[in-house]
Amino acid sequence: MFTSPTKLRVRYQETDKMGIVYHSNYFIWFEIGRTEFFKKMGISYIDLENKGYFLVVTEAHANYKAPVTYDDEIEIVTRLAELKNSSLVFNYEVRKGGALITSGVTKHAFVGKNGKIIRIPASISEVLKTSI
Amino acid sequence: MFTSPTKLRVRYQETDKMGIVYHSNYFIWFEIGRTEFFKKMGISYIDLENKGYFLVVTEAHANYKAPVTYDDEIEIVTRLAELKNSSLVFNYEVRKGGALITSGVTKHAFVGKNGKIIRIPASISEVLKTSI
Amino acid sequence: MFTSPTKLRVRYQETDKMGIVYHSNYFIWFEIGRTEFFKKMGISYIDLENKGYFLVVTEAHANYKAPVTYDDEIEIVTRLAELKNSSLVFNYEVRKGGALITSGVTKHAFVGKNGKIIRIPASISEVLKTSI
Amino acid sequence: MFTSPTKLRVRYQETDKMGIVYHSNYFIWFEIGRTEFFKKMGISYIDLENKGYFLVVTEAHANYKAPVTYDDEIEIVTRLAELKNSSLVFNYEVRKGGALITSGVTKHAFVGKNGKIIRIPASISEVLKTSI
Repeated sequence: MFTSPTKLRVRYQETDKMGIVYHSNYFIWFEIGRTEFFKKMGISYIDLENKGYFLVVTEAHANYKAPVTYDDEIEIVTRLAELKNSSLVFNYEVRKGGALITSGVTKHAFVGKNGKIIRIPASISEVLKTSI
Repeated sequence: MFTSPTKLRVRYQETDKMGIVYHSNYFIWFEIGRTEFFKKMGISYIDLENKGYFLVVTEAHANYKAPVTYDDEIEIVTRLAELKNSSLVFNYEVRKGGALITSGVTKHAFVGKNGKIIRIPASISEVLKTSI
Repeated sequence: MFTSPTKLRVRYQETDKMGIVYHSNYFIWFEIGRTEFFKKMGISYIDLENKGYFLVVTEAHANYKAPVTYDDEIEIVTRLAELKNSSLVFNYEVRKGGALITSGVTKHAFVGKNGKIIRIPASISEVLKTSI
Repeated sequence: MFTSPTKLRVRYQETDKMGIVYHSNYFIWFEIGRTEFFKKMGISYIDLENKGYFLVVTEAHANYKAPVTYDDEIEIVTRLAELKNSSLVFNYEVRKGGALITSGVTKHAFVGKNGKIIRIPASISEVLKTSI
């Protein structure tokens, strides 16, 4: 179940001398997709952090199929692909005018303030489960 | 055969509100490792681009094992893992004081000015081959 | 005459270990304001570049009054403050919930493909003039 | 009294579609100059933060005279221009092969953990004073 997409416009600063978006920026866009995903599920990621829960990135992957450039309007579709006791996997698609530009995967661990891995609180996992 | 490492110091701007380096920055560091790798092989990447050859990223992957933060000195070790007619695979290790922080892989296609995939020029592939 | 504001949401990557937005990001936001300003005036900045006109930054200034952080919604108000034969000055205000967060100024020269300063084409300057 | 320069090499990611370094990156380089300046004065900026002192940026200015691009070697020369009870002003020069590329100024306030402005500790200001 892919969520309704987040739209954004490519910034000049995100391009490089090849004239296209530099590849590391897609991971920043994936994070924007994640933030919106949580919001749509009724979860405020900033609230989670204020309560001492952090979602660290343990793995990140991107598959680049076509480039985008300055001022292009793109959309990011974000899906929760896996939910375990202490970890999550998200899938992403970056699309432009319907065409798939880049797909991606990020894996995350839930950690406490001390950086140790913890169980995802039931109140959160119950909500997230409904999206799979 | 890993190349001699490239050293760099973490920038304040590379950290995020969690107090550690934001995960997308590692891909920028991998690129620095790649630039240095080419130099050590006697190849100037900027010369390649001036001749109309571009090394686009088709896939990027990172595995985060431990964080680093502002002013940490890290080293990037870069290795050519695969060399085909029109593509390359690089492996990376980001280390701090010897400890492995993050490992990564990037895949690249050789393209011409028009963005079409081309054969890696023999003069380049002969040199790269010696590193594997 | 300030233009209708551009809204955006602060990205996680834009924060630093102090927990607030790193100061250089405001200049990226000013550029977003500029892009939107041109659009509202009916000018496509990307079209200008395709025709061989570039608006290089010759000076940039920011005055930081209060911080913003992850997920804050901000607005950028952009105004053309000065229009000369070959140069432009823009003023910016970054606001959050009405409060002024940061103000800024950028100065630009119009250059051609060879990097030499050129006169702003009359078709462009006539349109821009109406905003002052 | 300008300090001995900090050298760095332009990253691919720092360029934009105009083929040159995007203007906001110079402020990141100024910060690198500042970090090195403190080190040369025997002050660890990370230690200051760990003790609860933060050097927030209140104003930033850059004057762009010539561009640099990917793989260029540049040097940043940093000078403490003003030292007051609770604030500092730094001047910067970014040079390439001796030629001045960009000059800059940043103003900073000393704040405590609560974000309130505080007096610069005597142990710090005494050391900084010797550089002017």
